[in-house]
Formats: sequence, C-alpha cells, structure tokens
Amino acid sequence: MDFAYYNGSFLPYRELRVPLSDRAIYFGDGVYECLIGGGGSVYQWQEHMARLRFGAEFMRLSITDCEGLYSAATRLIELSGYERYVIYVQLSRASEHRAHAVRDFSRTNLLMTVTELEDFDCREISLITREDIRYRMCHVKTLNLIPSVLASHDAIMTGADEAVFIRGGTVTECAHSNVFILEGGTLITHPKDEYILPGITRETLIRIAEKHGIPTVECGFGKERLITADEVIITSTTKLARRASSIDGTPLKMNDPKTFRMLFTALESDFIENCC
Amino acid sequence: MDFAYYNGSFLPYRELRVPLSDRAIYFGDGVYECLIGGGGSVYQWQEHMARLRFGAEFMRLSITDCEGLYSAATRLIELSGYERYVIYVQLSRASEHRAHAVRDFSRTNLLMTVTELEDFDCREISLITREDIRYRMCHVKTLNLIPSVLASHDAIMTGADEAVFIRGGTVTECAHSNVFILEGGTLITHPKDEYILPGITRETLIRIAEKHGIPTVECGFGKERLITADEVIITSTTKLARRASSIDGTPLKMNDPKTFRMLFTALESDFIENCC
Repeated sequence: MDFAYYNGSFLPYRELRVPLSDRAIYFGDGVYECLIGGGGSVYQWQEHMARLRFGAEFMRLSITDCEGLYSAATRLIELSGYERYVIYVQLSRASEHRAHAVRDFSRTNLLMTVTELEDFDCREISLITREDIRYRMCHVKTLNLIPSVLASHDAIMTGADEAVFIRGGTVTECAHSNVFILEGGTLITHPKDEYILPGITRETLIRIAEKHGIPTVECGFGKERLITADEVIITSTTKLARRASSIDGTPLKMNDPKTFRMLFTALESDFIENCC
Repeated sequence: MDFAYYNGSFLPYRELRVPLSDRAIYFGDGVYECLIGGGGSVYQWQEHMARLRFGAEFMRLSITDCEGLYSAATRLIELSGYERYVIYVQLSRASEHRAHAVRDFSRTNLLMTVTELEDFDCREISLITREDIRYRMCHVKTLNLIPSVLASHDAIMTGADEAVFIRGGTVTECAHSNVFILEGGTLITHPKDEYILPGITRETLIRIAEKHGIPTVECGFGKERLITADEVIITSTTKLARRASSIDGTPLKMNDPKTFRMLFTALESDFIENCC
C-alpha cells in the first residue's frame, strides 16, 4: 500500500494533507529526488542525496540530516510491503504566510512517499520534440515543472511516450529523462550545464559504457542527429534505459540493438547487485 | 482573521490542509491571481478573471465557473471581517498520483485565501538587478515562481525591496511587479510578450497616463535607462505604484515627483471609486 511521510508523521498516501505554510503549494519552492529500490534497500542513495544537497544549497534551503531521512525511507518501505519500490523525497521551504521573500531560511518541510516500482519494460518508445522554453536552472531538480508537465501531456495526447526538448537547435534532454545517441559505436549526450538535469542514470550509463570500451562524448547535437543516429536511448531512474523507435512520426534507424541490449542489461545488473 | 477556501470548504487559514492529489505540491501545476478589495467588493474582478481564464487555457486546465468563484470570495470576505483585503485565487490540476502527464484534464482544485490589505505606503524603494533566467512563459501567471522567490530573497538580504530582471541587456520586469521609466514626460515599459506578466496595474497605469495626456511607449530598454530616467516606477496589485530611489546602490534621478504623485493618486482614486 502506498504510504507517505510528512515532517515526522507516517500515513497512508491518500490520508496525508499538507498545510498552507508549505511553500511548495504557492511557489513550487522546493527540490526533490525520486529513487528506486528492492529487498529493503535503496539504489544509489548517496548519489541522490548528494544531488538533493546541491539543490538545497542552490535554493538556500536547510537540509534535514540524511541519517534521519534514510530511517524514514526504511520505515516507509516496511509499511508499504512492496518488494520493489519508488521512494519520492521532497524538501520544500516553510513560511507562515504567502510572500515571495522569506527571512527565515531554516524552516523546511520534508515529504516522502513510497509507491510500487513497475517492472523495467524495455519497451521501444516514440518521441515528439518540443521547444525548450524552460528556465536556465535545469540542473537543479526543483518543483517548478510546468514546461515538462505540458510537454509530457503533448507526448501522451499524440500517442507518444516522451518529449525531447530542443533549445536553439540543440537537443538538451527530455521532459523527464536524459537522451543519448549511439553513433558509430560512440555514445553522445548533452554536457552537464544549466540546460539539463545531471541524471544519475545518465551518469551510470556513461560509467558502464566506458567500462565496456564504448567511447562517450558529452557535447550538444541537433535534432537531425537523432534521426541519423544508430540508436536513440532515453535514461531515467525508474525506467533505466529505453530505445526510441520514432520521433515526430519519423522512424528511427535502430541499427545497433546489440549495444543497447548490452547497456540495458548492465544497468539492470548494477541495480540488482547494489540493491536487491 | 485570515480564512481559506478549498474545493467547497471554508476554514481558518492555519487549519486548511491540501491533499497530495493537488499537483500544485509536486509540479507547481496551476495558475493564480491576487486581487484587492474593500467594503465588500473586489477591485478589477473581471480583469483578473480574464487573466485567470487565459492562464487556465494555456495550461489546459478546466476553470470553475466564475460566478461560484465570486460567491466564495464574498463569503471569505464576510468571514474575515476585514475592511480592506487581499483575495488570493489558485486553480491547480488534480491527479490521483504523481506523474508528469495526466490524461484527465478536467479535474482541478480551487484554493482561495483572504488576508488583510496593508495601507498603500507610497514609500520610496530600492532595487537590485538580477539576470532574468526565467522560462519563456512569463506571461502566464503560474505557480512556478522559484526565480522570483530567489531574486526577492536577494533583494531583502541586501536591504533592498525588489529585484529588476534583465534578460540579454533588456529590462523585463521585477520579481513580483512591473517596471516603468518616466523619461522627458513619456512613460515607457516593456511590451507584452512571453517575457513579462501583463500586469493589471500596469494596464491601469497606462490607461490613466493616457487619460492625463502622458504619452506611453511599450518598448524594451537597458539598465542604463533606469539610471538616467527621471523616475523609475514599480507597479503591482497590492502596492499600486511605488517610486524607486536606488538601483544596485546607485541613487536614481527622481526628477519628476509631481508626475509620480499625480499617477499614484489617480491609481488610488480608481481603486476607491470602483470598489470601496
């Protein structure tokens, strides 16, 4: 059963209520992480906590000590009874009333939820493209997600699975995942800067590729390279990696299933070995 | 006393709680309006509702009928007992669980609050400048407000009152207000596009200026024009208009107090005549 934690209380997901002093409600004034796990433990906890700390610092939010956070996650997992799960962690700012500026930076709220992790389906997915109109702080995993929400809607409503953002001709990332191309045996993705989220699965894929002798390059590329690439690979925490089969209705090459399969299997093994 | 309304219920502000099915919490997935009023009525209700409807349409959110919305506002005002008040209206999307894309566009939540309106203080204010890193949909009044929150923090922490955003050398608007310059008797402000919020007080000031024979121009200008202008005027719903006396520590000219005073008085009269 889905459970939630909020500032010390554990409740079934549907019963939890958030007070108006939580600035997530008025401003999206917080940061979050989404983690997966199995068999009682959580995958890449340290990596996610490091990103949460970075985001909190950027946002000038005090961060709860990570030990207490891990205990709460463990309790949620026990309560849920799930074998494999998604842990959502949200740290937001608190203030008595709605006002853009706050003087007290130390007051925060901690929200966590546990839901069941779906099987990694390894399904081929179709993409659409959307102009990247997001703010210039995409490297911070905040609750200001409207452009991603609207692009995700557009994808679903046109029968696709995910939207690729393009900023000034350059492919940045997707609405809720990172994007790679595999070109002549080389894995290419946008460099880490203010235009993309430094995905943890993105990082893991780069590490795994290099370990298997696949060169990796972090540089910008245009939409046409998605169409001419051997493979287009989408990575995220909850899905690991998926292959794209079309973009804006144009079929993609899909020339190198062997390499994709090898990379996916290595990602899945990394999850199982380090967690379940 | 501050009161709040949520999906049919009226409660004291501090008692209201929001369920996790409100996507404001996870995504800032909603739009809002802030209105002022006195003596039982609300100022510029139609204008604010028109902007709320525009935002809802942009966001593909169903909007509650405005009649019911007005009744709820009236009830909140009665409950509060305030003579002059701020009405906050927030329309957000609802979904059972957290997922970027939703298939049901019809489910919304309506949150409203009433707080007391502070006197228009007419105080001279000091400004700082910040790079405008916001998304390219600033004309939609959404709950994705982190860049404005951080810029407002910066202003307060440096002893200033408001932050002016500058995008590629051009002054756009402030963290939570619009900005005008008065130059040789002409009132100048950024044109309405995706880089600024079409402020309702901004619109009222333009109308009032024209009525009083003051030419108005909507065009972009750089930071140096703030420094050389006769007056720098900041407009917002709750403060009407205020004069700026410095920017990033540099004193401003303040050459035309007479015109500023005339414009402020006309704005205040418009509020009183049409409302209180």
